[in-house]
Amino acid sequence: MEKKLKQGLLYDFYGPLLTEHQKHIYELFVYDDLSLSEIADMEGISRQGVGDLIHRCDKALMEYEEKLGLIERFRRNRDRLLKLKDELSDINDKELVDDIIEEL
Amino acid sequence: MEKKLKQGLLYDFYGPLLTEHQKHIYELFVYDDLSLSEIADMEGISRQGVGDLIHRCDKALMEYEEKLGLIERFRRNRDRLLKLKDELSDINDKELVDDIIEEL
Repeated sequence: MEKKLKQGLLYDFYGPLLTEHQKHIYELFVYDDLSLSEIADMEGISRQGVGDLIHRCDKALMEYEEKLGLIERFRRNRDRLLKLKDELSDINDKELVDDIIEEL
Repeated sequence: MEKKLKQGLLYDFYGPLLTEHQKHIYELFVYDDLSLSEIADMEGISRQGVGDLIHRCDKALMEYEEKLGLIERFRRNRDRLLKLKDELSDINDKELVDDIIEEL
């Protein structure tokens, strides 16, 4: 997966666990797609400082996913629901409906 | 909700974010239902120390729920699925099936 996409997804799920400062900088980088230098200029910190902070956020967010696995679970559930949607869309016998109810 | 039930639920969702030591003590208290004194004796720490640790775990777990709201989301989804299950169980017209597919 493209790196910024992956960072955006991790942030969607675990962003609330970062500090306000981390959230602010990480959003500038990932959502607003600013460069490290641009963020450094805006925030009055060094480019290296911004890079370190982003890196620490990446690491923290990935550790949350390793421990809680919400993104993995989300993907699994989405796949299941899409399958269910397919099955429902050509529903035509009672037995299938019973199977689906069972699955729910 | 009865306190230990609530602690068990919080632990089910956010337990992986505690340290190994915290998990061990918290499980003795919440799952095995041992008293603070019993845990203190077993682990060779003071009763007060056990109490403080449990209290810190409670606080951390509740903060995770405040930030991520997984338990709240889980309840909402479960309610939705139960409703869906009800609706599917007396399925009898095409329009309702379409509504359900839309909801999914």
